[in-house]
Amino acid sequence: MPAKSTDPVAVIGASGALGFGLSLRLARTGVPIAIGSRDPERARETAARAKQHLPEGEFSAHDNAGAARAAETVILSVPFRNQSETLANLSDGLRAGQLFIDATVPLAAAVSGKATRMLGVWQGSAAQQALEMVPEGVRVVSALHTVSAASLSDLDEELDQDVLVCGDKRADKREAAELIDRIEGLRCVDCGRLEMSRTTESLTALLIAVNARYKTHSGIKLTRLPEQLWE
Amino acid sequence: MPAKSTDPVAVIGASGALGFGLSLRLARTGVPIAIGSRDPERARETAARAKQHLPEGEFSAHDNAGAARAAETVILSVPFRNQSETLANLSDGLRAGQLFIDATVPLAAAVSGKATRMLGVWQGSAAQQALEMVPEGVRVVSALHTVSAASLSDLDEELDQDVLVCGDKRADKREAAELIDRIEGLRCVDCGRLEMSRTTESLTALLIAVNARYKTHSGIKLTRLPEQLWE
Repeated sequence: MPAKSTDPVAVIGASGALGFGLSLRLARTGVPIAIGSRDPERARETAARAKQHLPEGEFSAHDNAGAARAAETVILSVPFRNQSETLANLSDGLRAGQLFIDATVPLAAAVSGKATRMLGVWQGSAAQQALEMVPEGVRVVSALHTVSAASLSDLDEELDQDVLVCGDKRADKREAAELIDRIEGLRCVDCGRLEMSRTTESLTALLIAVNARYKTHSGIKLTRLPEQLWE
Repeated sequence: MPAKSTDPVAVIGASGALGFGLSLRLARTGVPIAIGSRDPERARETAARAKQHLPEGEFSAHDNAGAARAAETVILSVPFRNQSETLANLSDGLRAGQLFIDATVPLAAAVSGKATRMLGVWQGSAAQQALEMVPEGVRVVSALHTVSAASLSDLDEELDQDVLVCGDKRADKREAAELIDRIEGLRCVDCGRLEMSRTTESLTALLIAVNARYKTHSGIKLTRLPEQLWE
């Protein structure tokens, strides 16, 4: 297990399935989690629920902007339907220099369409929409779209899959990878510029189709990669 | 090695890197390959070159329509720039009942853009464009977008990756999978309807970005799938 970290990470949307699982997994590696929710009462409930699952975990409860203020790294994990509103509400919590990891997926389910279909986002992807909306100087990368929320939340499940990381700056991607790679069984892969998110996001819809067919929680692995991915 | 098959398969665009590698790999499992090229002389050269690589392989040379006439299964592996014209030329070789496996990827490179970017295809994907253009009753599936041409062509390289198969009829996908699964180290996965091709096709651009970063020929694997994928 990695050394205990003292830098907290904000998870916006931690009451949702992916955000909750991610909070548990990161907290288990010693990362204090600032749980953000639109409703502070919901954040408190989520923090209490997380504490039940992982008594040694460190969870604090905030409204979204408060969570963002409490950390230098912010993970956004909300349904696409709420991404834009959440980013607007977050703006007075975000500040230049923060690392912002967007995990939003524009599934057509956001407008009552199928979860195996995607919406076209004018900017190209949800991550690019996030980039447009955060304050200047916030460093945006995207990641975690293909990791099953159910798998993350079940702390007994052994993970063994890749996390596809996109972003315009290699250093930002590396920083996100250092955080996410703390979670045993996840391996971050540099998948290019932020615009590649339109593909990594759409993989969620593909995996939903595969999961429905095979009744599983599938993930992605890339083959034939070198040992050192972030030298 | 699987039993020798007597059913030939047409590979349209077999002089290209992916088509050539695929022809070799299939021929090695005993499938006679009808090599199609716009230029019959080029088809003959390609067949001779394939025979050099794999003396025991069975290769015949045709123009595109001739290759399609010679087989019940047709694989289309041409640059996106040529897909539409090739399909127009193929139309008198194709006929109802044939299985048509489209491997076309609408990379932006087709219009001198980056190979890490995709073109938007009005129908949704290159495979859906193919579906629109083939004669009625031709059974279209898409596959093979994520398999590296270089890996296929190097017969000494051990493959170990998945082939993402999309199509509207399960039976058609299964038939394509039975053919492609003959190649050792490839595992076909049912990824849903033909419309999912827009994602499987765009994975090519993603892998090109990953390959540039890591100087490799990466492929895709899906995790946590059952043993039996085509029961």
